[in-house]
Amino acid sequence: MPVTLNTSDADFEARFADMLSAKREDSADVNDVVAGIIADLRAGGDRVLCELTARFDRLELTPERLRFSPEEIAAEVARVSPEDRAALALAAERIRAYHARQMPEDASWTDPDGATLGWRWTPVSAAGLYVPGGQAAYPSSVLMNAIPARVAGVGRLVVCVPTPGGVVNPLVLLAAELAGVDEIYRVGGAQAIAAMAYGTASIAPVDKITGPGNAYVAAAKRQVFGRVGIDMIAGPSEVLVIAEGAQDPDWLALDLLAQAEHDADAQSILITTDPALAHAVAGAVDRILPTLPRAEIAGASWRDYGTIIIARDLDEAAALSNRIAPEHLELCVDDPEALAAKCLHAGAIFLGAHTPEAVGDYVSGPNHVLPTARSARFSSGLSVLDFLKRTTLARLSPGALAAIGPAAMRLAASEGLQAHGASVEARLALLNERGAE
Amino acid sequence: MPVTLNTSDADFEARFADMLSAKREDSADVNDVVAGIIADLRAGGDRVLCELTARFDRLELTPERLRFSPEEIAAEVARVSPEDRAALALAAERIRAYHARQMPEDASWTDPDGATLGWRWTPVSAAGLYVPGGQAAYPSSVLMNAIPARVAGVGRLVVCVPTPGGVVNPLVLLAAELAGVDEIYRVGGAQAIAAMAYGTASIAPVDKITGPGNAYVAAAKRQVFGRVGIDMIAGPSEVLVIAEGAQDPDWLALDLLAQAEHDADAQSILITTDPALAHAVAGAVDRILPTLPRAEIAGASWRDYGTIIIARDLDEAAALSNRIAPEHLELCVDDPEALAAKCLHAGAIFLGAHTPEAVGDYVSGPNHVLPTARSARFSSGLSVLDFLKRTTLARLSPGALAAIGPAAMRLAASEGLQAHGASVEARLALLNERGAE
Repeated sequence: MPVTLNTSDADFEARFADMLSAKREDSADVNDVVAGIIADLRAGGDRVLCELTARFDRLELTPERLRFSPEEIAAEVARVSPEDRAALALAAERIRAYHARQMPEDASWTDPDGATLGWRWTPVSAAGLYVPGGQAAYPSSVLMNAIPARVAGVGRLVVCVPTPGGVVNPLVLLAAELAGVDEIYRVGGAQAIAAMAYGTASIAPVDKITGPGNAYVAAAKRQVFGRVGIDMIAGPSEVLVIAEGAQDPDWLALDLLAQAEHDADAQSILITTDPALAHAVAGAVDRILPTLPRAEIAGASWRDYGTIIIARDLDEAAALSNRIAPEHLELCVDDPEALAAKCLHAGAIFLGAHTPEAVGDYVSGPNHVLPTARSARFSSGLSVLDFLKRTTLARLSPGALAAIGPAAMRLAASEGLQAHGASVEARLALLNERGAE
Repeated sequence: MPVTLNTSDADFEARFADMLSAKREDSADVNDVVAGIIADLRAGGDRVLCELTARFDRLELTPERLRFSPEEIAAEVARVSPEDRAALALAAERIRAYHARQMPEDASWTDPDGATLGWRWTPVSAAGLYVPGGQAAYPSSVLMNAIPARVAGVGRLVVCVPTPGGVVNPLVLLAAELAGVDEIYRVGGAQAIAAMAYGTASIAPVDKITGPGNAYVAAAKRQVFGRVGIDMIAGPSEVLVIAEGAQDPDWLALDLLAQAEHDADAQSILITTDPALAHAVAGAVDRILPTLPRAEIAGASWRDYGTIIIARDLDEAAALSNRIAPEHLELCVDDPEALAAKCLHAGAIFLGAHTPEAVGDYVSGPNHVLPTARSARFSSGLSVLDFLKRTTLARLSPGALAAIGPAAMRLAASEGLQAHGASVEARLALLNERGAE
């Protein structure tokens, strides 16, 4: 049985606050190493990229071989089974359909003063997607990052994926192909982030970099931010399941374990109004856990961070959820819509017993790149908007300038900005002259 | 005459690239000082806040006096002239009307497989707005930050503004009142940012912090990012004016100088197809500059960063604009809409000769907090969206899970995540049993 809290216990508030503020991540300080790699890459370009790939990925490359050729991609992709291909294609199609609905609209209107105002959305010209190598090379993440970029209309879409010892996951290449990626480079780590941000002779720079990665990749993204845009820096994954009444304990246990098997730092929390269900789920976790291939990881996560909370009622559960602001929120209750309306801060909500979080990781359509570590209080999952930017537009008729210009002059004067006021005044003077003629 | 480049010169590309990569800002490294202030504030709360305010702002406070009382605000606001009040109210109303149109819509639909999908926007619960003290205390910035937050539905809106020697700008308080700010604290610097991020006994923590500030404030925002959301870290301001033909050189000169008078690090660029106009504008700047109260600042900016570029035609001008990705783009040409369609990366576009950039700083309606230093390639100005977050929603019917669940199981297996697959399989097994009954 993991940590079990009851909201009616005297020490509940203190223990819940401890849980909220617990750090689940080692923050290895790799900033200096990464700064060195970025500086070297900027100075040495492709040569440094090849050197670092030889050192870290045990792979000898030349600048010509940094990029996967179409033939190499075709050969790898041909190894994918028809079943895997069909599943990935279904996922791609559903993710595309969901994100297509996110495209925002331009606007333009003329107000009563004669000012034509509005805005316009345009895509980022070029985006780079980082894909981790080895065990964490998830083809699903390629789809989740690349498809919103393509839907947004990004002109050039680049993937960097390390291939330690020259080994690549064919499903990653297939996912890139299904998502419409233009260029794939077999480089990784901080050097790949630096190459995409600053460019080399072989890799043209991009404007925005997204995608998960280890501590070096995360530090490199932070350091190149400003030069390029980046997505969030994600922390360990987490799920909150709120359940009541007649739920199947095994289903809930599997949902908690699905989160726990990601990472020993992941966190799975169950809030239930039913102490008997809490007990049954804890028992089911203990029974199922040893049967999992990733039992060691999932077990460490459940032991260190797994939490079960007994709440008085669903309103109290919703209030706790709002303090947790979970990345994933599963509502296994009789009226999930009513409860969802009270859960104000969450990356993604899964409603009802037939919507396990795992379908959201792959095929339901919404993005699986979501805010972690309580940041759903102020941020959102990855979307088409991350690959667009908005330009505001204003056109004043002479009459509009005459109507609102004097207020601008007054405010400019109050802020001591004389030329601001004069730039309006000069135009109004001519309008007045013309009016007087 | 400032730097004048001609796109037909042999060395144009090199000189233009130099201009693009020139750094206009001293990046004083204040990170260690700021980290110390944040740690002190977290440990000492209000006591530290009062100590630092005494030291940096020469103002002795007690925790009870950190916050402006309604009577203090009313007394200060009463000092504002009716003309200034009317101008600020007009600005507030126009900014509110513009931003109200930015509210995004929720969505929900059921796809043919029986999956009900969608998303929901909710406001950040509490936001904090930093307002610099002294000369840079711009009431217009209070409106530009606070009104989008209020339009978004932020529940609690806080302002922190330093009052060196106890002096406050009444227009700042009036702007806060017009925008609907809930609490105003007379604290500034990194300590104010830390107080809003972590909270003290007197100041409850917020979820998002926006607003401009000096190097200490900027560093503090970077350091508390993750604990709370922040807006962009803005660099020196900039304008690009594209002009052709029969434009009034004085108007263009004043627009360039309005930018230059902000800051010695600001940058004003003119691109024109007409060498005679270039010459006339340069002459007008030289004539007007000495007459400005802020001639020293504007003169330094124009001398160090002012640039005039002679382009072959407007297509070439648009291509250069896209490489500059200016914060403010003024199109003083015969057909500004046609040119705007070719200018893909800009924070805000001002169309036509009667839309000086200065009206956008105050009263036209769009936000004046805009991406600087070429970041319009990948980011947007402040908007209602900065105070909202999106939660994705999914509810699968049993039939939908049966339709798309197997693909999720397949992909989970390919990624080695057994519990993910099992959480779907357990549900499908029961559905199959029921189907077989």
